[in-house]
Amino acid sequence: MPPKISVIVWNEFQHERENAAVRAIYPDGLHATIADALRRNPALEVGTATLEQPEHGLSEERLAGCDVLLWWGHKAHDQVSDAVVERVQRRVLEGMGLIVLHSGHFSKIFRRLMGTHCSLKWREADEKERIWVVEPSHPIAAGLGEYFELPYEEMYGERFDIPKPDTTVFISWFEGGEVFRSGCCWERGHGHVFYFRPGHEAYPTYHDANVQRVLDNAVQWAAPRVNMPDRCPMSPALETLSPKTLNFAKVGIAQNQEDIE
Amino acid sequence: MPPKISVIVWNEFQHERENAAVRAIYPDGLHATIADALRRNPALEVGTATLEQPEHGLSEERLAGCDVLLWWGHKAHDQVSDAVVERVQRRVLEGMGLIVLHSGHFSKIFRRLMGTHCSLKWREADEKERIWVVEPSHPIAAGLGEYFELPYEEMYGERFDIPKPDTTVFISWFEGGEVFRSGCCWERGHGHVFYFRPGHEAYPTYHDANVQRVLDNAVQWAAPRVNMPDRCPMSPALETLSPKTLNFAKVGIAQNQEDIE
Amino acid sequence: MPPKISVIVWNEFQHERENAAVRAIYPDGLHATIADALRRNPALEVGTATLEQPEHGLSEERLAGCDVLLWWGHKAHDQVSDAVVERVQRRVLEGMGLIVLHSGHFSKIFRRLMGTHCSLKWREADEKERIWVVEPSHPIAAGLGEYFELPYEEMYGERFDIPKPDTTVFISWFEGGEVFRSGCCWERGHGHVFYFRPGHEAYPTYHDANVQRVLDNAVQWAAPRVNMPDRCPMSPALETLSPKTLNFAKVGIAQNQEDIE
Amino acid sequence: MPPKISVIVWNEFQHERENAAVRAIYPDGLHATIADALRRNPALEVGTATLEQPEHGLSEERLAGCDVLLWWGHKAHDQVSDAVVERVQRRVLEGMGLIVLHSGHFSKIFRRLMGTHCSLKWREADEKERIWVVEPSHPIAAGLGEYFELPYEEMYGERFDIPKPDTTVFISWFEGGEVFRSGCCWERGHGHVFYFRPGHEAYPTYHDANVQRVLDNAVQWAAPRVNMPDRCPMSPALETLSPKTLNFAKVGIAQNQEDIE
Repeated sequence: MPPKISVIVWNEFQHERENAAVRAIYPDGLHATIADALRRNPALEVGTATLEQPEHGLSEERLAGCDVLLWWGHKAHDQVSDAVVERVQRRVLEGMGLIVLHSGHFSKIFRRLMGTHCSLKWREADEKERIWVVEPSHPIAAGLGEYFELPYEEMYGERFDIPKPDTTVFISWFEGGEVFRSGCCWERGHGHVFYFRPGHEAYPTYHDANVQRVLDNAVQWAAPRVNMPDRCPMSPALETLSPKTLNFAKVGIAQNQEDIE
Repeated sequence: MPPKISVIVWNEFQHERENAAVRAIYPDGLHATIADALRRNPALEVGTATLEQPEHGLSEERLAGCDVLLWWGHKAHDQVSDAVVERVQRRVLEGMGLIVLHSGHFSKIFRRLMGTHCSLKWREADEKERIWVVEPSHPIAAGLGEYFELPYEEMYGERFDIPKPDTTVFISWFEGGEVFRSGCCWERGHGHVFYFRPGHEAYPTYHDANVQRVLDNAVQWAAPRVNMPDRCPMSPALETLSPKTLNFAKVGIAQNQEDIE
Repeated sequence: MPPKISVIVWNEFQHERENAAVRAIYPDGLHATIADALRRNPALEVGTATLEQPEHGLSEERLAGCDVLLWWGHKAHDQVSDAVVERVQRRVLEGMGLIVLHSGHFSKIFRRLMGTHCSLKWREADEKERIWVVEPSHPIAAGLGEYFELPYEEMYGERFDIPKPDTTVFISWFEGGEVFRSGCCWERGHGHVFYFRPGHEAYPTYHDANVQRVLDNAVQWAAPRVNMPDRCPMSPALETLSPKTLNFAKVGIAQNQEDIE
Repeated sequence: MPPKISVIVWNEFQHERENAAVRAIYPDGLHATIADALRRNPALEVGTATLEQPEHGLSEERLAGCDVLLWWGHKAHDQVSDAVVERVQRRVLEGMGLIVLHSGHFSKIFRRLMGTHCSLKWREADEKERIWVVEPSHPIAAGLGEYFELPYEEMYGERFDIPKPDTTVFISWFEGGEVFRSGCCWERGHGHVFYFRPGHEAYPTYHDANVQRVLDNAVQWAAPRVNMPDRCPMSPALETLSPKTLNFAKVGIAQNQEDIE
């Protein structure tokens, strides 16, 4: 029996505490809703972590054992400590998977891995989103049809300031007239990164069966194949050619002979 | 007559001051050698900047007028201020071109734009490097043959921990047995980024005619087409569909009615 | 003064002859409308060619002098001779640019260069298309705003069975609910290929100022930088290592000694 | 227990019959050597097919049940029937995996899926090849070290006229001075395509343990996730906006009113 994929669902967990409408949808936090759905897959071992916990629930030890981290944040990106962000980045580059959700496009960790602003257009107006599957043979699209719909979502519109995705799995249509690359895959170091757009806190998106399927697929896709810490080694030569004399005269530059090492 | 492309060649400028052999090759700093070569192109307006200058020679005003920045650093990456790095990143995302040279793979600005460690293998052993042109129709390869050689260089070998380049223009062969993607292109925001491997300070690489041709080509390739500051606007709807009623009951989630906005 | 970019606009030219409504929009053929618009750019030298001409107007000589070919076809793809298709493909691989329009997604030349079916969803229902600019700094997007609209077009919807574009410049929104990657760039050999979706014959799309701007931009983007015929040369070694003895015993495979060359 | 991955190893099988030195290395054909190695994996069901068989051993029925096809050809590419090539292409676009080996770069099926010449430099001179692993976390690189060597191979050198790979897993170093992208991945339709360079018939390459590991990894990577025949459907609208009147006057084009449908 192969070992379970170890998953952490990280959530800011502020909106739920401050806003009754959001709490009504996610009584224990959206991380609990996402985690409960993922736990239906017996191959996954799922925990959660939130901003206000010590080290935001992401200690060195906990992250060392984490295969895939999901991240939801919105109004408190700046409160995430740089030390934890660097730790998460290092783990991704070693092989840990990362799934960034919705407003997490502006999280420190996503912007750090992308190198761009990650800006976009937006509008909160209870609009329908239709998520088209552009790559139906991609693992993240398994079990979905040609598209699925969310009756109410916050619009995100192009231009999404991201590096070109390695693969664009989903493109969304919004009733107000916009489009958006809503499912994007990259590799950073040995880690897989997946950005998935839906998930405005005021809508029950994470209760949606298709959304839950996407997250389950994405966790399996993002699970690490290797765990390789960073190295920048001096490496001895593998081949020997004829002996060399360092001779700048040969390349046309005059110099002070006694200075040459 | 179109306006000149405004170029800044940035250099740490420490090795030249501390090491006589390096000073013999680059008496005024390698930035001066690179700048002098670029100035032969009348379409370019070329200045330089070094680490020890106020704001590392890269004030807001100066960077605002800069079209393409070349960057060489090695032993003092940590001495570059985060404020200047953020400023350079912002300018790249707005449209400024960036050419990162040799040991600049570990510069703060390159790692920030890539999101990865940018590690590699290396060896200082006076070895021949043969730079093969993989994309001969790319603007950066203009005027080069199938390959060119540098008689002495520091080896860099794969695996180079970078995000997949949008285009790999050059792949190098080293006599000690390694290979390396030595000319790599990416876009970050509206800016073009080119990493070019050769340029160990103890060799006269920046005097080489082919290397100078590559840099001239790269400056023209990286020159901005737009200058677009970052925006993340709330955008009004362009289309109106039928009126909407926010109705969670419709999607199967019970809630406390008086809480709904 | 640099030489003009030599352009040929190729059109099947059947709908215009068979259908009065189409003829009303494009009295001399849609190729004439496109060519007239392109001729406003003094840097371009523009001709046309149509299916019924000898060799479809694309003789070896004519194609040898062509820098960029635009292609519109719909109901007669099978009538294009394989000899001409192979000739066009060879020229693209040598460096000639190719811009494929609308129903040209099913042309022999586009499918040959892509290697896929190039299938899609479609619907003729006089629907609005909004073309979003995803890469505003791309040369093909020069002079456009954030989006432009065509009041009436034929819908094309994902999944578009194409290889991943090197760059997706435009994504379209259709009022009937679909999305489509409507501006896609690839390189094939030394040639640039651009697929641009709009252009159903029953609508005046090629009279549209934004569409004409896109085609003008695309011609300049696709213009060749090199002209390199195909070669597969035996190449002598550039380096000599120690002498070799062909010795299969060394790698563990028994053989009949007298058979070894 | 999941169903086995069904594999076919296709080989021209001419060199082995005509050349005793080659027959000494591959007495039953190189396809038998490759197939025997793959059969060590109990998850695979492996068969073979050769050129001279009816339909080259690739009937509709046999291909319909094939998950991954490996292809080795060299001197008889032109003898492969176009009907079989089209059948193989269709199966790849539906989801079948394809692994193209060595001189198969000039096979009809590989050139058809790539759309380019697939030319390269070459030299038969018993030279060492060192295959560097550029993407160590890629499934095809599983179980390999940083590199592996083949003591004798035929050199292939850049420029390799292929579309940009989605992923370059391996880059080779040759003792005569060349480099080559020797492990390249693409997607075509729903199928995975992997090109793997080594395999000159006069050397025992397919007996090599690392090469056999690569092929086993590649078969698992290329195994289909879906099987989707081609469709280009007319699709009814999913949304209804306000009723439309087709009105060319609105867009500034005069026409003959009675012609409008």
